[in-house]
Amino acid sequence: MDFTGADILSVNQFDRPSIERVFEVADDLRPYAQRKRITRVLQGAILSNMFFEPSTRTRISFGSAFNLLGGEVRETTEVSASSLAKGESLHDTARVLSGYSDVIVMRHPEAGSVAEFAEASRVPVINAGDGTNEHPSQALLDLYTISKELETRGRQIDGLRIALVGDLRYGRAVHSLCKLLAVYNSVHYKRVSPPELALPAGIVEELRQRGHEVSVYHELEEGINQVDILYVTRTQEERFPTQEEADRYRGLFRVNQAIYTKHCEPNTVIMHPLPRDSRAKAQELDDDLIHNPNLAIFRQTDNGVIVRMSLFALVLDVAEQVHNHAQPVTWYTAKRNPR
Amino acid sequence: MDFTGADILSVNQFDRPSIERVFEVADDLRPYAQRKRITRVLQGAILSNMFFEPSTRTRISFGSAFNLLGGEVRETTEVSASSLAKGESLHDTARVLSGYSDVIVMRHPEAGSVAEFAEASRVPVINAGDGTNEHPSQALLDLYTISKELETRGRQIDGLRIALVGDLRYGRAVHSLCKLLAVYNSVHYKRVSPPELALPAGIVEELRQRGHEVSVYHELEEGINQVDILYVTRTQEERFPTQEEADRYRGLFRVNQAIYTKHCEPNTVIMHPLPRDSRAKAQELDDDLIHNPNLAIFRQTDNGVIVRMSLFALVLDVAEQVHNHAQPVTWYTAKRNPR
Amino acid sequence: MDFTGADILSVNQFDRPSIERVFEVADDLRPYAQRKRITRVLQGAILSNMFFEPSTRTRISFGSAFNLLGGEVRETTEVSASSLAKGESLHDTARVLSGYSDVIVMRHPEAGSVAEFAEASRVPVINAGDGTNEHPSQALLDLYTISKELETRGRQIDGLRIALVGDLRYGRAVHSLCKLLAVYNSVHYKRVSPPELALPAGIVEELRQRGHEVSVYHELEEGINQVDILYVTRTQEERFPTQEEADRYRGLFRVNQAIYTKHCEPNTVIMHPLPRDSRAKAQELDDDLIHNPNLAIFRQTDNGVIVRMSLFALVLDVAEQVHNHAQPVTWYTAKRNPR
Repeated sequence: MDFTGADILSVNQFDRPSIERVFEVADDLRPYAQRKRITRVLQGAILSNMFFEPSTRTRISFGSAFNLLGGEVRETTEVSASSLAKGESLHDTARVLSGYSDVIVMRHPEAGSVAEFAEASRVPVINAGDGTNEHPSQALLDLYTISKELETRGRQIDGLRIALVGDLRYGRAVHSLCKLLAVYNSVHYKRVSPPELALPAGIVEELRQRGHEVSVYHELEEGINQVDILYVTRTQEERFPTQEEADRYRGLFRVNQAIYTKHCEPNTVIMHPLPRDSRAKAQELDDDLIHNPNLAIFRQTDNGVIVRMSLFALVLDVAEQVHNHAQPVTWYTAKRNPR
Repeated sequence: MDFTGADILSVNQFDRPSIERVFEVADDLRPYAQRKRITRVLQGAILSNMFFEPSTRTRISFGSAFNLLGGEVRETTEVSASSLAKGESLHDTARVLSGYSDVIVMRHPEAGSVAEFAEASRVPVINAGDGTNEHPSQALLDLYTISKELETRGRQIDGLRIALVGDLRYGRAVHSLCKLLAVYNSVHYKRVSPPELALPAGIVEELRQRGHEVSVYHELEEGINQVDILYVTRTQEERFPTQEEADRYRGLFRVNQAIYTKHCEPNTVIMHPLPRDSRAKAQELDDDLIHNPNLAIFRQTDNGVIVRMSLFALVLDVAEQVHNHAQPVTWYTAKRNPR
Repeated sequence: MDFTGADILSVNQFDRPSIERVFEVADDLRPYAQRKRITRVLQGAILSNMFFEPSTRTRISFGSAFNLLGGEVRETTEVSASSLAKGESLHDTARVLSGYSDVIVMRHPEAGSVAEFAEASRVPVINAGDGTNEHPSQALLDLYTISKELETRGRQIDGLRIALVGDLRYGRAVHSLCKLLAVYNSVHYKRVSPPELALPAGIVEELRQRGHEVSVYHELEEGINQVDILYVTRTQEERFPTQEEADRYRGLFRVNQAIYTKHCEPNTVIMHPLPRDSRAKAQELDDDLIHNPNLAIFRQTDNGVIVRMSLFALVLDVAEQVHNHAQPVTWYTAKRNPR
């Protein structure tokens, strides 16, 4: 994949060398995200951060990533306010807005809309989520986190054993992560979900055809032992036909410290594509895991900024120039909770 | 007109030398808008981009223009959220907000509100649309586009023949453009609209008194031959008293490639103050015009950024200093659809 | 108080030396706020300006203050859009968002929420208003204004006589100002309000225990003579149980030029924590005061930017470095209404 000027629309664009290139540049940019130094490599460049559907954290993560490279951000969070409401085509909107910036990040509730938008855009477009379809930067940051967590444990992604827990049917993040992982060798996917929320058969089939092992569990305890990564997702109760059905599964796939200690191998990494529901009895990940050093959920979101910086640097072709514009950081940066 | 520190509230402020000054600076700024180089001339300056009525494209166009000159943008898109809702006067709001920035761009649904705001502001105010009243930067970008399009065809604005098509009664953009054009010599305005949506008699009278020819057509085909510019507007169906009346005119003033080829002179420029309605049967400009090189609608929006940069540079008196702060562009800028 | 890396959550954090340090740095930053010169000391730093409750002026004041120090601002004004709506804990939101920036400003409708947020944040948090609880930067800017106004009149805060007029019961700004003033010597607080809107007994008691004089008046004329500062607040009619009760007090605590001339000492300073209600008969401060040079309400809001710059500079520990990054201002800055 040639990143320069490319649209980032789908995880299907990424083969193994492309993923490794994203991660290599991400590693290189880590000191800037951690405020060890600053760079102004994109000084004068403008990101249009177009969110036609709300998403505070993804929006700010992309915006901060661009700021960290020295660029400016223009933003839209108005849904009904857009010209689309007046009957304007996505083509026109894209062509107009792409005249205002150097790169566009776009979230939109309709599957396929971002790709259609990118067709007409004169600048690169990054998909920040198009309905139930794709959210490639989320999958890349998940995979990057897996890679870094395994690295500190002396392992690598080939041969990975991962438990996928919760809503595997509707979870866009899980689907994309499954596909990205499939470019590696001999991954064992352990699926743990209610039958109603099982991973779609098409994805299972694809993973198997590519030589991976896919097994299924309906009890949490069976699925989460002997894995490297425990990837838990939020079960969106509104997905069930009735509240009664939702209630049947509530808490069944909830991980807490006692379950972890009893069933998981030491140093099993716990991940989650936040937000997690922390209301009483609804928690997927119990609060008592907060002191478990293997809880990587906030390292995931921190990595999100770094991976997005990497995508911007690659698409705008400045990855090699970042260090030329480096400057020292002069303000207070000591993090108070360094884990 | 002395631009330094001036408010830009109305097209009535602009005589011919003022317009030519705006365009001269715009030409000078074009390489920065096109990312041939960057300038930091407004580094440290702050724009308050106050949109008390939604308008994604105008808001981002102004914001990007300010960023392109090196300045920062603070933004408001909250309508109900404003202190105005708590009974605060426009005077107080203006006086307070003008303490936070170096220049203010303001859109507001009430005619006259921006001028009232400017009275109390301590920094220059640019009107980005006050209800049905004025939107001077739109008229300036339309006129700038006319000027550039004619230039590439070896012509000038004096002696211009322009067809104004669609809703000429309520269209703020058309009214302002008519007035700006009137400072040139011997313009022929050809009006093409349903009788219910005719250009207001007061404007027609004014144009005639200033020595211009104003003719009227109720059939599209008659009005659009022998013109240099075809300026088509959106007919807002909600303007009609009943849906039946709206239906009577739907499609009657719609331009497509076949009509263009049959009735227009070669190289007649097609313009539109977007957004255009692209829903089936509602189109003012048919999609089949997309390959017509005379379709200038996206050159209009691109020019919008340049004209707004020019207004900022003039009002803040940095037009002569722009090149002193120029730097090379170091990131990918190759546009993929260069027309 | 050691400012470096500190959260600014409550006026209770501030002793007299801390307040004087904020004001000393504010004085030092004044030339930058007034565009006499610019500084880039926070170039590369990112503020997350999180407003989970609307407040145009406070939001822009903080954002501009950060821009004036050279930093970038990422912003949230979406209330329902936040992940909090999906059941995410404040802890998670704080931990995630604090990975995206160097400092966070937060407004939230619930008392105590900002402190809870700060617990989990990895970067300093400044409270921009948490419900009825605290809004420390407002109190600091009020006190800074008192200090500067007295200074030009050859006086100081020790021995201050201040009339507090209007809604003293619910007014967060008044409560915080009372507490901050209490660190000085021999302040005389004159309370002027309807009995239903009296200053809470707990605050009165605290002020008295710290050696200050607190007196009470139910007639405007009695309370406002022989004071240095007249601090008027908005009576929020929605605070009364019925509209009839609200109507009983309307206009009773309204100050106009005639009342000022008749009852106040010469050069009594008039202040108000804007917005003020300027609707007919609802005004707390009459429009005819606009030419009174002692009306300091807009000097208050101007000072707000300066005090917020000071807080950022102290918390991020760059107060001593500001002048190292100073540059001349090259654009038009002549204010048109210089008072």
